[in-house]
Amino acid sequence: MFEQPLIECLKHQGPVSIVTGSAKGPHLVATWVSYLEIIDNRTLAIPGYAYHQTEKNINDGSGVQLLLGTKELEGRTGPGRGFRLTGQGRFDTEGEIYEKVKSRFNGIRAAFVITVDQVEQLI
Amino acid sequence: MFEQPLIECLKHQGPVSIVTGSAKGPHLVATWVSYLEIIDNRTLAIPGYAYHQTEKNINDGSGVQLLLGTKELEGRTGPGRGFRLTGQGRFDTEGEIYEKVKSRFNGIRAAFVITVDQVEQLI
Repeated sequence: MFEQPLIECLKHQGPVSIVTGSAKGPHLVATWVSYLEIIDNRTLAIPGYAYHQTEKNINDGSGVQLLLGTKELEGRTGPGRGFRLTGQGRFDTEGEIYEKVKSRFNGIRAAFVITVDQVEQLI
Repeated sequence: MFEQPLIECLKHQGPVSIVTGSAKGPHLVATWVSYLEIIDNRTLAIPGYAYHQTEKNINDGSGVQLLLGTKELEGRTGPGRGFRLTGQGRFDTEGEIYEKVKSRFNGIRAAFVITVDQVEQLI
């Protein structure tokens, strides 16, 4: 699922947008690329500092979309590579992933875990 | 509407997420900070290369949210500053804004114009 073009992108700092949906419309928040923990070949974890509306939307059935990119890498049409990841989210407040994220980000309330179903290179 | 902390952020390259909503859920696409044209104190224009689903969502009544940020500037809690902009979008295929954007990005089909109603500094 996570292949080399994405792995390279995950080494370039920048914002990562996090989008969920609700009956009221999309909810858009973010983290930083350097904050992402790669758990395995299809799973990412984000330090869960707040994200209360995001968690509510997930509990109400929303999927999660992430967007990241960098102008520093070549993409499909020249300089600039970006990805949209689509998957499912959950908030872990105990367990191995939570402990791993907490070891880097002590103030978190949870590990926000994203299991990715689809990786799209947009550019 | 656009104040100094945001104006500074607009000088740092990186992805800008663009989110609209529909009955099927959020639609997440992007552009680059350097591609944004500041039209006036509350209006931005994006080179409109595709964004067909985004345009459809807007025509169906969706607002637009943008997210951008950089780790290179100080934010509220240390290094890292990011903004969420909320507003209304339209696709101009003629007129002054279209001509201005087209002078930089010759292949566009439209100028994707965002009139911002709300600026939130998230971090």
